[in-house]
Order: sequence, then C-alpha cells, then structure tokens
Amino acid sequence: MEMLELPQQQQHHRKKVNLSNPRSSFASFRSDLKETFLPDDPFRDLKHQSGCAAACSLVKYMVPILEWAPRYTLAKFRSDLLAGITIATLAIPQGISYARLANLPPVVGLYVSFVPPLIYGIFGSSMNLAVGNVAAVSLLLASTIGSQVSAAENPDLYMNLFFTAAFFTGVFEVALGIFRLGILVDFLSRSTITGFMGGTAIIVIMQQLKGVLGLKHFTTKTDVVSVLHFVFSHTSEWRWESVLVGVCFIGLLFLSKFVKAKVPRLFWVPAIAPLLVVVLGGVFAYLVHGEEHGIHIVGPLKKGLNPISITHLKFHSKYFSVLLKAGLVSGFLALSEGIAVGRSLAMLKNEQIDGNKEMIAFGMMNIVGSWFSCYLTTGPFSKSAVNFDAGCKTAMSNVIMSICMMLVLLFLAPLFKYTPLVSLSAIITVAMIGLIEYEKAHHLFKVDKFDFVICMAAFFGVIFFNMIIGLMVSVGLSVIRALLCVARPDTCKLGNIAGTDIYRDIEQYPDCVGIPNMLILKMSSPVYYANASYSRERILRWIEKEESTANKNGELHYLILDMGGVTSIDSTGIGMLLEVYRNLERRQIRVVLVNPRLQVAEKLVSAKYIEMIGEEWVFLSVNEAVSACHFSLQESRTIDP
Amino acid sequence: MEMLELPQQQQHHRKKVNLSNPRSSFASFRSDLKETFLPDDPFRDLKHQSGCAAACSLVKYMVPILEWAPRYTLAKFRSDLLAGITIATLAIPQGISYARLANLPPVVGLYVSFVPPLIYGIFGSSMNLAVGNVAAVSLLLASTIGSQVSAAENPDLYMNLFFTAAFFTGVFEVALGIFRLGILVDFLSRSTITGFMGGTAIIVIMQQLKGVLGLKHFTTKTDVVSVLHFVFSHTSEWRWESVLVGVCFIGLLFLSKFVKAKVPRLFWVPAIAPLLVVVLGGVFAYLVHGEEHGIHIVGPLKKGLNPISITHLKFHSKYFSVLLKAGLVSGFLALSEGIAVGRSLAMLKNEQIDGNKEMIAFGMMNIVGSWFSCYLTTGPFSKSAVNFDAGCKTAMSNVIMSICMMLVLLFLAPLFKYTPLVSLSAIITVAMIGLIEYEKAHHLFKVDKFDFVICMAAFFGVIFFNMIIGLMVSVGLSVIRALLCVARPDTCKLGNIAGTDIYRDIEQYPDCVGIPNMLILKMSSPVYYANASYSRERILRWIEKEESTANKNGELHYLILDMGGVTSIDSTGIGMLLEVYRNLERRQIRVVLVNPRLQVAEKLVSAKYIEMIGEEWVFLSVNEAVSACHFSLQESRTIDP
Repeated sequence: MEMLELPQQQQHHRKKVNLSNPRSSFASFRSDLKETFLPDDPFRDLKHQSGCAAACSLVKYMVPILEWAPRYTLAKFRSDLLAGITIATLAIPQGISYARLANLPPVVGLYVSFVPPLIYGIFGSSMNLAVGNVAAVSLLLASTIGSQVSAAENPDLYMNLFFTAAFFTGVFEVALGIFRLGILVDFLSRSTITGFMGGTAIIVIMQQLKGVLGLKHFTTKTDVVSVLHFVFSHTSEWRWESVLVGVCFIGLLFLSKFVKAKVPRLFWVPAIAPLLVVVLGGVFAYLVHGEEHGIHIVGPLKKGLNPISITHLKFHSKYFSVLLKAGLVSGFLALSEGIAVGRSLAMLKNEQIDGNKEMIAFGMMNIVGSWFSCYLTTGPFSKSAVNFDAGCKTAMSNVIMSICMMLVLLFLAPLFKYTPLVSLSAIITVAMIGLIEYEKAHHLFKVDKFDFVICMAAFFGVIFFNMIIGLMVSVGLSVIRALLCVARPDTCKLGNIAGTDIYRDIEQYPDCVGIPNMLILKMSSPVYYANASYSRERILRWIEKEESTANKNGELHYLILDMGGVTSIDSTGIGMLLEVYRNLERRQIRVVLVNPRLQVAEKLVSAKYIEMIGEEWVFLSVNEAVSACHFSLQESRTIDP
Repeated sequence: MEMLELPQQQQHHRKKVNLSNPRSSFASFRSDLKETFLPDDPFRDLKHQSGCAAACSLVKYMVPILEWAPRYTLAKFRSDLLAGITIATLAIPQGISYARLANLPPVVGLYVSFVPPLIYGIFGSSMNLAVGNVAAVSLLLASTIGSQVSAAENPDLYMNLFFTAAFFTGVFEVALGIFRLGILVDFLSRSTITGFMGGTAIIVIMQQLKGVLGLKHFTTKTDVVSVLHFVFSHTSEWRWESVLVGVCFIGLLFLSKFVKAKVPRLFWVPAIAPLLVVVLGGVFAYLVHGEEHGIHIVGPLKKGLNPISITHLKFHSKYFSVLLKAGLVSGFLALSEGIAVGRSLAMLKNEQIDGNKEMIAFGMMNIVGSWFSCYLTTGPFSKSAVNFDAGCKTAMSNVIMSICMMLVLLFLAPLFKYTPLVSLSAIITVAMIGLIEYEKAHHLFKVDKFDFVICMAAFFGVIFFNMIIGLMVSVGLSVIRALLCVARPDTCKLGNIAGTDIYRDIEQYPDCVGIPNMLILKMSSPVYYANASYSRERILRWIEKEESTANKNGELHYLILDMGGVTSIDSTGIGMLLEVYRNLERRQIRVVLVNPRLQVAEKLVSAKYIEMIGEEWVFLSVNEAVSACHFSLQESRTIDP
C-alpha cells in the first residue's frame, strides 16, 4: 500500500501554519544577538527620541546619579543619613577584620570604605547596596597572592599586588559590563554560591582560631585538615585569657542579633554591636595591658586619608599570571555576590537592577580604588542588609558612610590601635556563621538532588582543597548538567484525554488513550547535534514498539511530531529529521509536523524539509493533524479496501 | 482590589493536571540515569526471560557474531566473499599509503588489515563496516608522537609508541562503551566533522607534494603555510618525471570514479583502481629503473605475518602524557568517524547499530591489534562504502579481507617493493579530494550560520594551525552554542487565533489577538540557573510592557505561564518562579500555570510552589485557564463593581 495522501478538500478552510516570508537571515541573527547580549533592551526608550534628547538620556542611563539626584528630597536624605551612619559603624570593625584576613595593614580596611563608595554613589544603579570588602574574596586573594609573595617578608610589594589585582578586576568587570557579558555571571548557580559561601565561612572561621586562641603565628594553608592539624600541634601556645574574652564577645554579638529578632525596630543594635565590641575590647585591652596576657592588639594605625597608590601598581610579567588569576576569579566572586545581593534586595522593593550596569559600577570603583590604596571591594551581603534595614533610599547612604569614614581616618584612626585581635575574630566568626545555610542545602536536597551535589561539591571542595578548586568543580558540574539536558531531551508519547481534544503525555496522564494507526510524539527543545542521534534512535524505537503492538492499535501509518516545544534546531538536528523521514518513507509511514515555532519553521523551510514532507502535512495543532490523518485514512480505505 | 479568587463551581467538572503521587526521588533519578546512559535500553528483552535464557541472550548481546552466525547462509557468504576480496584489493594500497603518511614502515599498513578485522568480525555489530587505518588519524598520530620522538632517528621506538597509543585508544574506547558514554561522541557535531575532514584532506594532500614532486626530504610541519613555504624553497629538487607519472595516475583514478558514476554496476572498477595503479607503477618503476629518474619506491617489505609487539608497549612516564593525548584525541576521531559511517550505512538498510557496542568492538580490535604490530584502526569511510557497494551482508567480509591479507603477507609482500611513492601519493590525493564537501558547507551556510562558523573554525584551524587546535576550537564553539541555547531560552507571548481555541506566538501569527486583562507567556525549556535571572527580568519586562498599554487591553490581572514546553527545571529556576510570584502578588497580578510536564510538576510540588499559587490555578490547557480567568473576573466585577 502506498503512503497515504491528504485529500484536497481536507486542505481548504483550515488555519495554516505560518511558513511564509521567513525573516532575512540577518534579521533573525540580529534578534538572536540582541536577546543574548541586550536581553534588558536598555535603549528601548531612545528610539522615540530626537538626537539630543537621546544622547542626554543615554548619559543618564550610563550615570544613574543623574537619574535620582534631581528627584532627591530632604526626607530621603534623612533616611540615607541614618543608614549611612549605621553602616559606617559596621564598616570600621568589618574593614579592619577583613583586611587582617587578607594579611594587609588594618588601616587598608578603612580606606576601602572611603573612596569606592563615592564612585559607586555616582555609577551604582542599586539603591540598597552598601559597598565594602568581603571575607571570602579577602581570603582568596591572600591565598593566591600569598603563594607568590610573602606578606611577612615583603609587606609593601604584597600590598601593591593587592592594589594591582583590584585594578585587573576593575578592568575585567568594566569589560564584562560594556560587552554585556552579564551572561557569564549567570553560570554561577545559586547552588554553587550556597555551597561556596558555606565552605568559605567554615575556613574563615578556622582562620579565626588564631585570634581566639591567641596564637602568635599561624599556618598559611586554608583547608580544614591542615589548619586543625596546625592548631592542635601548638596547644602549648593557646592562651586561656584570649579564649575567655573571645567567647564573651561572641556571646554578646549573638545576643544583639537575638534582640533584633525579638524587636525588629532595634535593627541598629546588631549593626553597632561590632563597633561596641571593638571599643569595649580596646578599652579592656588598654586597662589590663592585654598584650602581656596574650590578648594581641591591632597595633598602630596611621592617621590620614588613602595614600595615592597608582604609581605602585605592579604590571611586572613575573606577577602578571598570578595577578590575572586572582583578578579574574575574585572578580567573578565579587560580581556574583554583589549582583545577587543587589538583585534580591531590589526584588523586595519591586525595583529592577541592570546587571551589566552594576558591573560597570563595580569596575569603576575598583579601578579608581586601586589608585588610592584600596583592594577589591564589592557589595557585601551583611553590610547591604543592614543598609536596607536602616531604610536607605538611594546610593547616597554610601556617600554618607564615605564621609564618616573620612572623619575617622582624619581624627580617630589612632584610637583603634588597642583593638584586640580577639574581638575582630569574634566579629568575623559571628558574621560567617550567618553565611552557613543548612536549611537551604536541605531544601536543595529535597527539591533537586543534582543541585544538592553541585552545592556539596563547592562546599567540600572549598573546605578540603581550596576555594578556587571548590568553585571550579562546582561550576563544571553545573555546566555538565546544562549540557546533559541538551544531550538528553525527553521525548514523550501523547495520547488523547477522553472527552476533550487535548493531547498529553501518556506517562503523566495514565487515562490518556493512544490513537490507532498513529504515533504522536512531543519533541522537546532543543533539537541539536548533541542529541540528534539519540533522538533519532529514540523515535525509531518508539515506532518499533508501536508496530510490535500493532495487532491491538492497527498498523502504523502516521508519525505525528509535535514541535510546539522546540525553540531551536540546528543543521544536524534537521539532518536527523531528514533521516527519520527517509527511513519511515520506506515503511510507508508518513511524518506529520505540528506547530513548528518561528525559528524552527524558518530553518525547516530553508532546508527544504517542509517542501519534502509537503506543506499540507504541517498542522497548527495536534487535534487538526489527527483528524486530517483519520480523514485521509478513511478515504484510502474507501478507495482500495 | 484584592487578588482574584477562583469561584468554587468553576473548580468542579474539569480535567485536573496530574499533580498527585509524584514518583519517589529514587524512581525519577533512576529513570533519568537510564535515559542518559542506556537510551537504547539494550536489555529490554531480558526482563521477560528466565535466568539462563537471559544470561545467554546477554552474551549474544555482547558478542554479535553469535547472533548472525547461526543464521548465516551460503548466499550471504557469496556476497561477503566478493565484498571481502574487493576491499582487500583496496586495503593493500591504502594501508601502505597511510602507513607512510604516519612515517611507519609500509608493511605495518598491511598488518592493520589482518588482525583487527578478525576481532571486529566477532564483536562488531555493524554489517557494513570495513575496518582499516585512516589518513586523518595517521597524520594526527604522526604529528603528535613525532613531536616527542623522531621517526628517522629512532624508528623502532617511534613504531612502538604507535602501538602503545593504539593500546591506550583501545582501552579508552572499551571504557567509553562499557560506561555507556557514547554520549561523549555526540558532542562532535556534523559541522565539526565536515570542517575537520575538509581541512585534514587539504593538509594530507599537501603532504603528498613530497611524493608527486619527488622530493627527497620534507618538512615535519602540517600547516599549509609552512608546507608551501618549504616546497617552494626547494624547487631545485623537483623531478618532472615524478610529476608526470603522478598526474597520469591521478587522471586514471578519476577516470575509474567516472566510469562507476556512469555504469553503477561497475562499482569494482574504482575499488581495484588503486591496486592497478600500484601494480602498473611497480612494473613501470622496475622496467625504467625509476629510482635513477627520481621516482622513489617503497623499498623492501618483510615477508611474514604480524610480529608480536605486546612486549614492546612503552608505558614509560616519559612518553605517558603524549601517548595519552594522542590516544584520546585519535580515539575520539576514530570513534566519531567509525560510528558515523556505521550509522549512515545502517540507515540505508533500515538497520540499527548500537554506538556503545561499536565502541567496545573498536576498543577490542585496537587493544588486540596493539599486541600484533597494528596501530590505530577504525572504520574508514572509503573502504566501508566500497564494502557496502560490493553488497556485503555481514561482518564476514572483514574476515575474508583478513584472510586475503594473510596470503599477501605470507607470499606477495616482497612484490610491493617497487611500488613508487608517487602512485601512493596519487591514491591518497584522489581519496582525500572526495572528503572535501563544498556543497555541504554551502548547505550549512544556507541553513544555519552558526553551524557554518563551527565548520569553518575546524577547517581553518586544521589548515593554518594543527588538527588538534582545529578540533578543540570547533568543539568549544559547539559547546558554547549549546550553553547559549540554555542561557537564552525564548519566551514568547501567546495570542488567540480568531475562531479557534488555539493560542500561538503573536510574533509568528500576526493575526493572533491578545486577551484583555491577561498576559499569556509560553516558557521554553529548560528553566535553569543559567537563564533564571534572564527569564525573571524578561517576564517582568513583558508585564511592564503590558501594563504600559493597559488603557487598550484593560488592567492586567493574570499572568498565564504555559509550561508545556518546559521539560526540566532546577532549584534556581523554581526560585525564579517564586520571585516572580511574590513580585506580582504585590501588584495584585495572579500567576496561573498551564500544563507542567511530569518532572517539572514533581519538582514544583515538592518545592511547595503549587501549594503557594493554589492547585486550582494550575490548568491543563491555555484555553481552560483563560476561560477560568474570565469567569472569576466577571464574578469579582459583579461582587464589587
């Protein structure tokens, strides 16, 4: 028996699939490019404007302060002032602590909260972000740059390399922003970040054992095993006084969090608690001459604003590779944290923030920062959350913080000389514990095993090897997962839901019934080289299965492919469809297409595939396809019984 | 106004989306695993069998010869005999030529057609494949191993490294097969192979200039620039006699192809033509004492079968890395060519071949081959095509070829001493020209620009740098493409096609009409971390656009997400949907889900998402969703006007 034809009358009076006028390849290419790199269509307003107006709104787009400054009010200023002061009090102890974590002079930790916030105030598009240094990146830089130059032996060079790394990061971030490559940051999944942050928190806390136990020197390693081994092989150096003070401070800080949890309007208590701990600690250390009882102190802090460091940037080839590595990796981390924080806070206020614009802002502040003795800065979660709670309205709160910090640098810096390391350790420890999100990991485990694995890979990678390995393995796994999903799309057989003209997955809806003489498959996206041979064999196996059960469903005459879900197809994919068609032609089984999407239809037309299967065999809905097939089947039966 | 509720009566008497009894996480995990690694479900017959029967059909599955041998008939044998002899005549000149291409002793090229075919005859599941050495891989191995050890200075070590590389490849291939990693080979797209083969053909032809021009020595480089530079800086060494003979032979070979094109049943003419060229050339060289006129000859070939080489395999750490590299890359190439060829020939006979089983067969023959002085063998296209034309029926044709080759090795080998290099060069040149597929590249250009770029990357990478670079760049591009398609799925707005209850992309079907108060978006697969933030912002922008045009469509109350095309979702994706829901809740816009697929529904349930939006707001079809929304809208209007 020949392959069944579709009777003429059946071809009239039905909605046709739009196969006419495919867009020019340029047009489609352009729209793809646009969706890829300008998904947020930043210039959509410009189209309707005159040259001058367009230019000025373009500048506005580039420099957000021009957007909000004109509408700035006294009321807003009042809230920003409060927020700014609050985060300033947090910035002092955090800055010093994280600078020490990076083995940098404590005062550098104060510098980072003076210059960068000013720059961010101008270019930043997030109204909630508070900028500063972060623990994870500080430790990462310390371990990367420390592997090249020792902080103890050559402190100046070490410091300058930090500034240079910040410069690299800045350039990298600006480049990403300008070339609209925010897409790269998308490849750091939440699972990865959760695991990475958790792991980092653990190893950072491990580093704090130095301060809490009052050890004189410490291992340069970061992985748990070697740190613990070091600590327990130096029990003789432990100082009970230091431990005691540390435990008290940690208790105090937790108490402050507890207070806020009970009485939300006391949000400022946990915010100023760290400063309190620093001051208390300082006074205490001063009174009891802590130094003599193993309570080590920060030591002298130079008065005065950030010294110019632009002349000290080291571009020597000897350090280039390590700086590049440090710059790129820490840049990725900084961006992912900063942008994630900015986004999640913006969501709470129904605001949108533009990832690419943020990248440029981060980049600018790191470049300029690197000229004024600042190392890598981003939008730390803790600080930004406080800023948000304190009711900030615009990026002005960063400017306020910066001014406060200026005053501190000019007048108060020396006072922090007596700050005991143990109080800094206490502050870091408490901050870090907040970053370990058990319940989130548990949620991942419940919802998606693979995500859980990705998360754990980052976590254990960081804990037992190092931060970069942890990150790489985890990102690698996520990419493999994405590729797997491309390589193994799931085709499913559709059946008719009794009493409707709806066709659904028979596995999902067991009461669906198959249609005699027809096999309806729903293809899923994308049909690519990576899954072409798989899909072909899968389809042919479906057909064999159908034919083996032919006795009950009648001989198979039609393969109906529902392409509704296929958003993109490549030439290998089309080749696969072609082979399937040829193969089935020999078995007198007709291939019928349903609802190909725009891009797909275009390619199928230009590849002459539609022409081959015949335009009349392309339908708008499964239902139409089925009825048409029924019809032509009866026709043929009446003709040759 | 509050968010609209769905009136009770509306919730009865409608088909529900199946959200009940999600499969156990183990079950779903297992099925995913199965689809990923056992897509062809090789053991599907075993389930219904008793232990013994199962075991024996398992063995049958592993050793295909047990499947076809019992059903082997004399008729089949006759066809196989003819085919076997034909490919043997082709195997001699090809084997010698490619061995020379790899700077190996010519006789090694005969060895590879003796042992491996026997092994393949046992394990091979393809009935059309003819095994042997291939030009591309020979050249690749030569350049890789040659970089470590010079063939001229240390021929024995060089040769043994080839055998060891073959051993590595074999182990690698078997491993891939056993662990069902055929999926890896899927990532070599056709575009890549087309470009790579074309480029290789060019550089292989370049290598033939040595033979054709009668040059004494030649550059070890493969890229076009340095080869041409070398050739034209040694014009003094060119020998016109050699060129003349070469041109004649090339003409002869093309003629033979022409004959077959005209008279298809003379398929054997082009098949034996190479042997003819070798014999003619040999006689000619013998008569005119070619050596004296710059027509170089192959030189003495040792009589006798493959010497044992298992004791010469070199696992010394010094060569390990280069051998591993050579083994893996050439393994990938060999597999991709062999499996591609096997598949395409099988398609023509409506046969299925199992990629993973083929890998094991290739692996076995390379491992055993490496013990008997054979270097990497696979299923070359030219040989297999001849085998197919000659009407082979089973893998027996390989066995026949192997027996012919044994006779040649035992008795005739020395006769090939006088084979002129120029005739080998002619044979290779003609064979290679067949591998350059302009029209295919042009087709790619027409159908898919990106595929064309991938193809060209491989082509020019091979020509101007080296084979590995070309391959890597091209594969890299294909992977990036696959990732891009995950990172930028295209959401589209659906509208109703007048006079039907079908909803389609308004961009594709301009006559579609939007529904007032509702925005219907078709999500596309997959919803992953890589596109979560993109999708969220895209959706929110759709909504802003809707609201800005609210005056005409009425205020927006419903966002209807058609999930029909989404085959998989991860936790970040669910998080994204969650944020969208929360965001819209504040704007009193209700999120409505349509037709979530099995896996997706499961995850949404276990993530409590369904619970949150309310099960009554999940519909089976867009149409139902729309009518339900209409209904509740009217309800609410009648209640509070």
